[in-house]
Amino acid sequence: MRTWLIALLLFVGQQPAPSNAPNAPFPRVNPDHSVTFRIRADEAKSVRITVLGPYDLVKGDDGFWTVTTKPLEPGFYYYAVVVDGFTTTDPGSQAFFGWGRYGSAVEVPGPDSDFFAPKDVPHGTVRQQWYFSKSTGSAGAWRRVVVYTPPGYDADTRRRYPVLYLQHGAGENETSWMNQGHANFILDNLIAAGKAKPMIIVNENGLPPSGVNAAAFPEFDAVIAKDLVPFVDKTFRTIARREQRALAGLSMGGGQAMRIGLNHPDLFASIGLFSPALRNLDVAKDYDGRLADAATINKSLHLLWIGVGRDDSLHDPVKASRDKLEAAGIRHVWIESDGGHVWTVWRKYLVDFAARLF
Amino acid sequence: MRTWLIALLLFVGQQPAPSNAPNAPFPRVNPDHSVTFRIRADEAKSVRITVLGPYDLVKGDDGFWTVTTKPLEPGFYYYAVVVDGFTTTDPGSQAFFGWGRYGSAVEVPGPDSDFFAPKDVPHGTVRQQWYFSKSTGSAGAWRRVVVYTPPGYDADTRRRYPVLYLQHGAGENETSWMNQGHANFILDNLIAAGKAKPMIIVNENGLPPSGVNAAAFPEFDAVIAKDLVPFVDKTFRTIARREQRALAGLSMGGGQAMRIGLNHPDLFASIGLFSPALRNLDVAKDYDGRLADAATINKSLHLLWIGVGRDDSLHDPVKASRDKLEAAGIRHVWIESDGGHVWTVWRKYLVDFAARLF
Repeated sequence: MRTWLIALLLFVGQQPAPSNAPNAPFPRVNPDHSVTFRIRADEAKSVRITVLGPYDLVKGDDGFWTVTTKPLEPGFYYYAVVVDGFTTTDPGSQAFFGWGRYGSAVEVPGPDSDFFAPKDVPHGTVRQQWYFSKSTGSAGAWRRVVVYTPPGYDADTRRRYPVLYLQHGAGENETSWMNQGHANFILDNLIAAGKAKPMIIVNENGLPPSGVNAAAFPEFDAVIAKDLVPFVDKTFRTIARREQRALAGLSMGGGQAMRIGLNHPDLFASIGLFSPALRNLDVAKDYDGRLADAATINKSLHLLWIGVGRDDSLHDPVKASRDKLEAAGIRHVWIESDGGHVWTVWRKYLVDFAARLF
Repeated sequence: MRTWLIALLLFVGQQPAPSNAPNAPFPRVNPDHSVTFRIRADEAKSVRITVLGPYDLVKGDDGFWTVTTKPLEPGFYYYAVVVDGFTTTDPGSQAFFGWGRYGSAVEVPGPDSDFFAPKDVPHGTVRQQWYFSKSTGSAGAWRRVVVYTPPGYDADTRRRYPVLYLQHGAGENETSWMNQGHANFILDNLIAAGKAKPMIIVNENGLPPSGVNAAAFPEFDAVIAKDLVPFVDKTFRTIARREQRALAGLSMGGGQAMRIGLNHPDLFASIGLFSPALRNLDVAKDYDGRLADAATINKSLHLLWIGVGRDDSLHDPVKASRDKLEAAGIRHVWIESDGGHVWTVWRKYLVDFAARLF
C-alpha cells in the first residue's frame, strides 16, 4: 500500500513528451524537466540512450529498462537508443529526419514553448510540392519542396506574398523546419499577433543525394537560383522582387544561405544566418570579394541577420566572422544568445528574423 | 580472387529498396525479388525480422547481422527488427506510420510498380491542413488532414473539383495513403493518362486518440459529416454536391466508409470498400435497415465498389456480405483479386475505383 502511494505520487505531474508517437506513454517529462525513458528489451545485456546523454538504462523485474535523466533545459533533443550495440530509434517517439536518417527526439516543454504551439488562431497550409529541376545531376530530376502558405492564401486569390527560403542543417532535409522547427505554427502565431507579415516559406533539401561535399555546392546554388525560385514565382502568388525575397538557413544551411545569397543579389535582399557553418571570414577575399566594398553591400542587403548561441561549438568562428563584418562597416543584426547548436535556439531565431522581414 | 568475383557477381542487380532512407544500402532487393536485410549489432545475441517472415539474422565476422528472405511477390511489406527482445525499426528504412507507431517497410519493385511511381507528368500537391473540429471530444480540437489537390489546381482558380474522402486502416493515420499508398502519384498518373477525372483527395485520421473502440465511432461520423465536409467545401474549390463526393477506405476505413456513407446519403453518392472490415452482412437489419430496400439504395448509390484479395484473412466475410448484396439485388462492383491484406492490393484498388468515379 505504501509502495503504491509512493508510485502514485511520483507519477503525478509526469507527462508523455509532446514529441511522442500517439498514445506512447514514454518518454515521460517529469515536473523537474528530467526525462524518463523506458524500453522493453527482455534479453538485452545493455540499453543506452545516446546523442542525448549518454545514459545507461537499468533493467527492472518487468523486462523494461528505464532511466531518468538529469533535469534538462526545456527544448528539443535528438536521441538514439542503443541495444546491445544496435543504434536505432525509440518506438515511443515520432520519427524526425535528422542525422541522415529517421530518428527519435524528445521535446521538453517549458514556459517558452508557447510560441511554436498549435494555438487557436488561423492556420496556414504545409504543402509538399514536386518540381522538375534541370540543374540536378546531369539529366535533371524531380525534387520535392515543402512550402508553407499563410492563413488566407486560398481564400483571397488576388493577394500576393513575399517569400522566405529557409534551409535546414546537415543530416536533415526539407521536412525538418516544419517537423522539428514547427515553422508553420511559429508563423501562424506571429501573423495572428501582427508581429510578422504574412509570407510564404519554402524548404528545399540542401543535401546532395551523395552527401555533403564541396563539389556539390555549385549544383545546389543552381537548383535554388535557376530552378526553384522561378518555379515558386510561377506556381505561387509571390511578389517576385528581390526586396520581397529572403534566404536563410541554420548550420550548413546558414553557410549555403550566405554564399547563395551573396552570389545572387538580383534575387535576395535579405539573408539570415542561424548558427551558420562559417569559417573565420576574410572580408576582402571570401565570396569572390563580394563583401569587399561595405558601401555596395550595405546598399544591396536590406537585412543581414547573424545569430549564434554562446554554448554553440560554432560560436567562436561565427563571432570572429561577425566581428570582421563590424570592423569592415558592413551593417548587420547580431544576436549572441543563450543555448547551443539546437532547434530550441533556431525556432527563436526564426521569430526574431521573420519579424524583421519585408 | 575467386571469392571476390563471386561476391561481385552476387552484388550485380541488387538494389537498395526504394523505401529506404536516403543513401541507406540495406535492405537490398535482389534480382529474384528476395530481400537482404543487414543490421549492425555487435553485442546482440539474436536479431530477427518480424511482421515480414519471421527471419533470424546471422552474425558475420564484421559485426553485421544479415539474412536473405525467400523471393517475395513485388509489393510493400511492413517489417520490424527485434534485437534481444527489443522490437523497433530498421534505421535503413524510411519511417511509415503503421501498427500505431512509426515503423519500417520494404518496397519490392516489380513490373507492376510503374503506376504509382513519380513520373514525368504534372504533379499535384499534398497539403497538411489544420481545421477545428467541434465534434472531437467534449471541447472540440484542432485536427490535421492531408489533402491532395490535382495538377493545375493553383493555376486555374475558377475550376472546381469533385472530392474523394479516402481512409486508412487500423494502426495507420492520415499520412498513410500518401506515404505508403502513393495515392498522389497514382492520381497524377491516372489524370495524365486521361483515365481518371481530376479530383481532390482528403485523408483524415480515422483512429480516435484513445484507440479503436465502438463508442468512438459516432464521434468519427460527426467529425466527417459535420466538420470535415463543410470545412473542405469552404476551403477548397469543390463541387459541393453528393454526386461529386465519394467516401472510401481500406480495412477499418472500409467499415467506416460503409457506415458513414450509408448514414449520409445527402453527402455521398459513391462508396468504396477496399478489403473492408465487414462482419457477415444482414441486409435487412444492419446499418439501421438502410440496405433493406434495393430499389431505394440502387437509386441513391451511384457506385458501391467492393474489393478483397483471395489471400486476405477478411476474404470470407467480405465475400459472404457481397453475396448477400447480390442476392438482394443491390447493384455494386465486385473485385475478387489476387493478394492479401496489403498496400500492394489497395493501390491497385484505388486505380480501379478512381477511374469509375465522377
